[in-house]
Amino acid sequence: MRTVDIIMKKRSGEVLSAEELQFIIEGYVQGTIPDYQVSALLMAIFFRGMNAAETAALTSLMLNSGDVMNLAGIPGPFVDKHSTGGVGDKISLPLAPIVAACGARVPMMSGRALGHTGGTLDKLESIPGYFTNLSLEQFREGLVHEGFSMTGQTSRVVPADKKLYALRDVTGTVESIPLITASILSKKVAEGAESLVFDVKSGPGAFMKTYEDARALAQSLVSTGTAMGKKVVAVITDMSQPLGNKVGNFFEIEESLDCLEGKGPEDVMSLTYRLGAWMLVASGIADTVAEGERRCAEAVASGKAMELFLKNIRRQGGDVEKMLALRGKFRSPHAQELTAPENGRISFIDAWKIGVAGVYLGVGRNTTEDPVYPDVGFIFEKKAGDMVKKGERIAMVYSKDDESLIPAMELARSSVKIETSLGRQTGKPGSGPASLILEEITAS
Amino acid sequence: MRTVDIIMKKRSGEVLSAEELQFIIEGYVQGTIPDYQVSALLMAIFFRGMNAAETAALTSLMLNSGDVMNLAGIPGPFVDKHSTGGVGDKISLPLAPIVAACGARVPMMSGRALGHTGGTLDKLESIPGYFTNLSLEQFREGLVHEGFSMTGQTSRVVPADKKLYALRDVTGTVESIPLITASILSKKVAEGAESLVFDVKSGPGAFMKTYEDARALAQSLVSTGTAMGKKVVAVITDMSQPLGNKVGNFFEIEESLDCLEGKGPEDVMSLTYRLGAWMLVASGIADTVAEGERRCAEAVASGKAMELFLKNIRRQGGDVEKMLALRGKFRSPHAQELTAPENGRISFIDAWKIGVAGVYLGVGRNTTEDPVYPDVGFIFEKKAGDMVKKGERIAMVYSKDDESLIPAMELARSSVKIETSLGRQTGKPGSGPASLILEEITAS
Repeated sequence: MRTVDIIMKKRSGEVLSAEELQFIIEGYVQGTIPDYQVSALLMAIFFRGMNAAETAALTSLMLNSGDVMNLAGIPGPFVDKHSTGGVGDKISLPLAPIVAACGARVPMMSGRALGHTGGTLDKLESIPGYFTNLSLEQFREGLVHEGFSMTGQTSRVVPADKKLYALRDVTGTVESIPLITASILSKKVAEGAESLVFDVKSGPGAFMKTYEDARALAQSLVSTGTAMGKKVVAVITDMSQPLGNKVGNFFEIEESLDCLEGKGPEDVMSLTYRLGAWMLVASGIADTVAEGERRCAEAVASGKAMELFLKNIRRQGGDVEKMLALRGKFRSPHAQELTAPENGRISFIDAWKIGVAGVYLGVGRNTTEDPVYPDVGFIFEKKAGDMVKKGERIAMVYSKDDESLIPAMELARSSVKIETSLGRQTGKPGSGPASLILEEITAS
Repeated sequence: MRTVDIIMKKRSGEVLSAEELQFIIEGYVQGTIPDYQVSALLMAIFFRGMNAAETAALTSLMLNSGDVMNLAGIPGPFVDKHSTGGVGDKISLPLAPIVAACGARVPMMSGRALGHTGGTLDKLESIPGYFTNLSLEQFREGLVHEGFSMTGQTSRVVPADKKLYALRDVTGTVESIPLITASILSKKVAEGAESLVFDVKSGPGAFMKTYEDARALAQSLVSTGTAMGKKVVAVITDMSQPLGNKVGNFFEIEESLDCLEGKGPEDVMSLTYRLGAWMLVASGIADTVAEGERRCAEAVASGKAMELFLKNIRRQGGDVEKMLALRGKFRSPHAQELTAPENGRISFIDAWKIGVAGVYLGVGRNTTEDPVYPDVGFIFEKKAGDMVKKGERIAMVYSKDDESLIPAMELARSSVKIETSLGRQTGKPGSGPASLILEEITAS
């Protein structure tokens, strides 16, 4: 078998066999196939695509390139949620303890902020003392006692994905539905989940800018995951505007605590309950989404979910007392107000611009080596649909330093659209929970 | 400027600016842009193509990545022919002295055999003593005295092409019209020719298998070369069947001598005169193709072309006496007859299969390190259109060793198609000079 023949086969639109894919993935991980041949193949895949069988074979090969989490001896059902990444998307934080409180186990492996999107690990690490690099034993103990654990991936989980993703990132081959599918699914299956709920974000603040692309990814995740023997649901949700009122690492921990107290912003509450309900349905704990939503709400109302969250924080080294003392006060002194430039109604706040501004502020990072900061980001007081007067505060903006405030504020100001004439109101504010969920896809 | 942005721009079908192409080519030659990014870009170019301006810019950048031949002080006009490569294509050998005898100067830089196609340098080096690695001074002296020189490229001519071609070869990105155009043209312009005639081969034995592809390359060569200020003609010729009666390094020297004596095979004679005529027209020596053909025939009839060829051989170290003594006798002892399996008329001899068989015999090579042999190859006694009796000899086949004869003979046998029933004759033998030239393209 020659790599160049496999490249040319895909280039001409043919289907690669499992053996050919195996030759490539094993050779690449072992270093016998060079980067420059793999990047050419990835670009050919970008143009020619992969069918369901190829995508499933690639996912399995990537999965088997490394360790698979051993959850033997722990009773299930194991279920996880994965979001394709957004701005202000802290749903994983309240969701894991809520679903665990309902009787499922959530073996959650999360990622870090990159580009304009935030990362669950960075948010958790803004809690003083919290660590996310769990050993297998620590990961298992959290699952046994709280029903969930929050960890990062070790280098031994899906090494093929790490190597491939780094290559895709610099060769313009990230945006390929089958490659994204294999990358996401291989990691989620490696963590041991039997059921998976995907929150596929769509819109300017999402990885998938168009509804069409988001839908294609959602369907690919469901069909490939199902082919691999998992129960999979994909929910396509709107990521035009930031989720919730807070964007920032510790700021989103605060909003997660609000949520676990039942008083989070309406969009965060409703999306958490909806995704939690699908997790309960997928894992067989609830029969219907409505029943699932009710049980999630009960887990919050009873305080059970909050109790598990705080126990998890203590187990993973976090200082709960210090966190609670910092709540509402952990704010960088480098701050500025974002105010309304005129009277009117806010029609839109561009999540992508807020996400990029967040990188300047220190919420996110451009390269994996950049540090992130806990006490920076946005706290919105007005959102789309709200009326504002000229000079009225829309948000407080906190930065790692004064210099970075300048480009961040410029982006933030340009992110806000205000309708001044009543006649030009669209009548569709675009906010609110009802419009968040665009479509729900289950295995047919 | 970031390489990944340029890759994504081309990936989405946009036109790259001259500055972007410069950033890539300079960075690649200098080693600051890695292979894996360039191969991804090449694959994107394969799918998205390049427009005339991009192709011309790329050609200029490649040209300027190295030395350009200095022909100052030598009177012109300078004209060259380039063939995209075929089987039995020795046209360059008689053509250069014929056109030089007519008053043009031919600064010819040729290549080596690779894959199923032969190489002019390998053929010349089958003449005892002949060397092709001329210094600039030697190259200039041949041009002054004989009106032509035959050399290989130094590593300092178009280094960008050497690096890019090696990468394309292993990444499935060879077959791209704009990349082929830039590769061919940059080298031809670097050698100092003002007018260029391209023999674009089409058919199973050619690089371009379909007429459509050959036509696209011919048009791209003409339009890009014209945009670079050169006079360019492209002639599309059939490469279904081997050209002439001999395929092999010294064997083709023999056929070139026949041709310069005016008694070469009809297809070789007529194609040589036709390409020579276009070279004379392009360089302003002849007004019409008919006049050009007449002058080429005169250069042969007068013995002037042969005289220049022998003078060139002596200048480049070749032993003319030894060559003439070997003529008709320089044959490997590892030989076998290719005979007709039945009575009938030969309808087709597949040039591609003969070319691949030639690699086994030692005519060509699979990798640039393989040796080639002077006294091996095919000598056809029957060609398409000829009637044969069962067991009658079609060709003598000479090999570097007995072992290699086995696969070569198998390929050779399968290359010959014989029509046994008179009723099934197509009436179009497919050989003969008339059908060789498919189309002639000049700048509009």
